[in-house]
Amino acid sequence: MTENINFDKYKNIKRHMGRELIDLNPIQRGGIIPVESKKAIYEYCDGYSVCDYCGGRLDKVETPPICEFLNDMSKFLNMDISRPTHGARESKFIVMHSICNEGDYVVLDENAHYTSYVAMERAKLNYAEVKNEGYPTYRINPEGYKEVIDKLEDEGKNIGLILLTHVDGDYGNLTDAKKVGKIAKDRGYPFLLNCAYSVGRMPVKGKKLNADFLACSGHKSMAASGPIGILSIRDEFADKVLRTSKTHPVKEIEMLGCTSRGAPIVSLMASFPHIVERVNHWDEEIKKTRFVVHELEEIGFNQIGIKPKEHDLIKFETPVLDEIAQKDKRRGYFFYDELKKRGIGGIRRGTTKEIKMSVYGLTWEQVEYVVDSIKEIVENC
Amino acid sequence: MTENINFDKYKNIKRHMGRELIDLNPIQRGGIIPVESKKAIYEYCDGYSVCDYCGGRLDKVETPPICEFLNDMSKFLNMDISRPTHGARESKFIVMHSICNEGDYVVLDENAHYTSYVAMERAKLNYAEVKNEGYPTYRINPEGYKEVIDKLEDEGKNIGLILLTHVDGDYGNLTDAKKVGKIAKDRGYPFLLNCAYSVGRMPVKGKKLNADFLACSGHKSMAASGPIGILSIRDEFADKVLRTSKTHPVKEIEMLGCTSRGAPIVSLMASFPHIVERVNHWDEEIKKTRFVVHELEEIGFNQIGIKPKEHDLIKFETPVLDEIAQKDKRRGYFFYDELKKRGIGGIRRGTTKEIKMSVYGLTWEQVEYVVDSIKEIVENC
Repeated sequence: MTENINFDKYKNIKRHMGRELIDLNPIQRGGIIPVESKKAIYEYCDGYSVCDYCGGRLDKVETPPICEFLNDMSKFLNMDISRPTHGARESKFIVMHSICNEGDYVVLDENAHYTSYVAMERAKLNYAEVKNEGYPTYRINPEGYKEVIDKLEDEGKNIGLILLTHVDGDYGNLTDAKKVGKIAKDRGYPFLLNCAYSVGRMPVKGKKLNADFLACSGHKSMAASGPIGILSIRDEFADKVLRTSKTHPVKEIEMLGCTSRGAPIVSLMASFPHIVERVNHWDEEIKKTRFVVHELEEIGFNQIGIKPKEHDLIKFETPVLDEIAQKDKRRGYFFYDELKKRGIGGIRRGTTKEIKMSVYGLTWEQVEYVVDSIKEIVENC
Repeated sequence: MTENINFDKYKNIKRHMGRELIDLNPIQRGGIIPVESKKAIYEYCDGYSVCDYCGGRLDKVETPPICEFLNDMSKFLNMDISRPTHGARESKFIVMHSICNEGDYVVLDENAHYTSYVAMERAKLNYAEVKNEGYPTYRINPEGYKEVIDKLEDEGKNIGLILLTHVDGDYGNLTDAKKVGKIAKDRGYPFLLNCAYSVGRMPVKGKKLNADFLACSGHKSMAASGPIGILSIRDEFADKVLRTSKTHPVKEIEMLGCTSRGAPIVSLMASFPHIVERVNHWDEEIKKTRFVVHELEEIGFNQIGIKPKEHDLIKFETPVLDEIAQKDKRRGYFFYDELKKRGIGGIRRGTTKEIKMSVYGLTWEQVEYVVDSIKEIVENC
């Protein structure tokens, strides 16, 4: 049966993005790993390599220092207990599956990532949405949580969890988690903050934001090689979320024993000093982002979402690109094509009505080059 | 808060096992990656790097060739449809969670891996065990499945799944999957084969074994960097296991959308030609294993489990090591210590009553060196 397989395609797997192109894709910019992580991955690339000195559970491994790392991560996040997971989506599912009962309602923002919905569906939960304010800001008003909670309570529905997307992946809106957390606390509901786009890029202090759970993504925003995430929780929820097996008492049920073995957790550890340091420069990242918005709005782009930007993910309406696409023989692909010629990637091929981009972590020189390139394309095409 | 963190420990994370020591740990030997995978990981170590050209789902990505790879993997496994998961445990949970109803019984072998139990507990299922034959073979008799099924049916219990551990991690016993699969088929129950220790080490043809599902592990036995696994299924179960979200119709619920992004899946692809080739040399691996058993039984080791060996994982009772430990001032650590001096690792520190080991993938020269070293230690200590 394997005679029909052409194995050539597996023999020299290469990537050009990142090395040859400046990558503007917002889901990529926070996951670019520093050189020290590349070295660590090289050391630990074999399958079960982090388990050389395992006593029975990943989060207790001392060599490499996973146990200490998780404690340090809790300090960094201003939470009590942290566990590695396979990513933010898995962290969300674990919280939902352990603290909610089947059929419970989750109250969440309309800007929530699709994985929040899929995790709820897998956990057999219902949901009620706090709507955003619509075009052009798509802002989530924290007060909206009160109304939705009131309505569900009036209808006698059981609410299991309040979920907020700290920064959404559509508009890059940063929502006031502290206020939503306060509402959840006042009403007596647990509060999960999806930090896939925040932790590791910008400073996040969980308890100050009234969070009971933080779902964080290593591959999205903590300069780690995927799949890896962190679930960080308050002590009072530890018994439920980290409950152990009846038949195998050392093993945590929701982790299925252990989670991210191998290269990803080592890359997350090796990148930890890097991300702790980089979140201190968040103001500078915002400056770069606002500069991009300012410059590109001058040539006919229109930033959607909250203004001024408070996160690096930018969504633009780009009628000016759409106009060019009408007359360029490459149609919608001209923009992708022209960017590529200039060594820039990460903008979705063929889209010209609206684009998403980020310049997170680029140098000012690179940011200026990106802006100048886009201006040049718009002016000359 | 981060002032109290000592970051030095994350700055030069190194591993000695594997590079400096011959690793005899059975969970490690199948997960050692070939050089072509190291290169591929280097290319794709950034977080979302495999998603450069994603149209919405990991298993459909064409660059790198994930979609083709999954088709090729299905051919290799003699199954219909394959998906990447985070590992064999996640594959088992996905099957249980999608095809069983809460409270259903899973019939499984007593030698099952702990993750099978934890996955059942997470999926809120009951179980009934097919007992092994006890000391010294701990053999699972396929006929035992009939009895357990009969008993459950007589009691009016609902059986959701038949699970067999193809090769167990305690004794390295290979159980006749075809017979168990036939029993499951005759009774009309779906059959899940846990191949964490078989697929990637030895030839496995799913349909020939009457399997409906194969749970495979990349980091354990497919020369891949964890966490990555494969769930391979028959067409008739696709609708249930791979059902998609009501709110996000392209996303598969049990995968939470996408699973193993980044380095692990790329390492699995790059290692694919290597594992397809290496399973052809399974006879030679068995020869090495039996040679080790033969030689070490001569100096007082006693192989536990089915004889002669049909898998590379060897469990020995080692009364001779225990005797030495009584009089050596290093106590139980003498063996670990003496092996290390000779460049051999992977035997659990401090254990002398029984040990687990594997010489899978070592050259004959290395196998002989391992045997000679152990003989020398026993004779001279």
